Amino acid sequence: MTSSPPAAATIPSSRKAILAAFLELIWNRGELDACDRFIATRYTLHHDPSDPWAGRTLDLAGYKERLAMSRAPFPDQRFEVQAMLEDGGTIAVTWLWSATHAGDLPGFPATGQRVTMSGATLYSFDADDKLTGHWQITDRLGVYLQLQRNRR
Amino acid sequence: MTSSPPAAATIPSSRKAILAAFLELIWNRGELDACDRFIATRYTLHHDPSDPWAGRTLDLAGYKERLAMSRAPFPDQRFEVQAMLEDGGTIAVTWLWSATHAGDLPGFPATGQRVTMSGATLYSFDADDKLTGHWQITDRLGVYLQLQRNRR
Repeated sequence: MTSSPPAAATIPSSRKAILAAFLELIWNRGELDACDRFIATRYTLHHDPSDPWAGRTLDLAGYKERLAMSRAPFPDQRFEVQAMLEDGGTIAVTWLWSATHAGDLPGFPATGQRVTMSGATLYSFDADDKLTGHWQITDRLGVYLQLQRNRR
Repeated sequence: MTSSPPAAATIPSSRKAILAAFLELIWNRGELDACDRFIATRYTLHHDPSDPWAGRTLDLAGYKERLAMSRAPFPDQRFEVQAMLEDGGTIAVTWLWSATHAGDLPGFPATGQRVTMSGATLYSFDADDKLTGHWQITDRLGVYLQLQRNRR
């Protein structure tokens, strides 16, 4: 097992801290095993036009598959939180994303170029503070424009 | 003066209600004069990749110009609020938008077709509950794909 910083040893108590740890461990570092600590047994992508899994409800294995496949072209990706709002147990987070286009995407072979994107996500939780789903918008057109420019 | 429903006669007291009235009167109905009741003297588009005014700070006249120009190709547009979260005086709202493509856009002459889009916006307020700016993501690629399909 790889070493983890102290912050990863225990689940934080507030939902904002939980979500910050989730984004760092799961989506920035890609720690598949850590999904068990954050994701409910059923996770629904309520709305997410840029995600191939949009509209689906995933079990833990499905979520891990989505995580691995989503990160494969962008292994060094980072989400930087801009703002986090909590209301009625739901959290809205706005973020900037950056990554190296290190692996192939459909129609876009790896270029090694840096790409950036912005987005906003609403996360829902269950009574055990596990994530049950999201509603997300990303500026996917911005990414395509950068990839097209790199392809020329 | 056109007749207004009772809800428009006074500014609601809660920020969520203010924002709902703002979206209805300003962006759904396009009532330019009503901007004075909702918009601060300086309004900043902090982040908005799909908006030609992104990054700019507008005065009231500038905001009205943006409103008129944004609505011109889509005069019957409607924003339907999906969720509203308030935290620390800021509001996050997720929405679905639909409109008839009734006016010309750059590269996309009017088609008369229905188009839809989803988005998420964070709105900031001043101490007088006037809007001072926003941070927004829209699925602009979804709109381009619909317009391209209509163009063929």
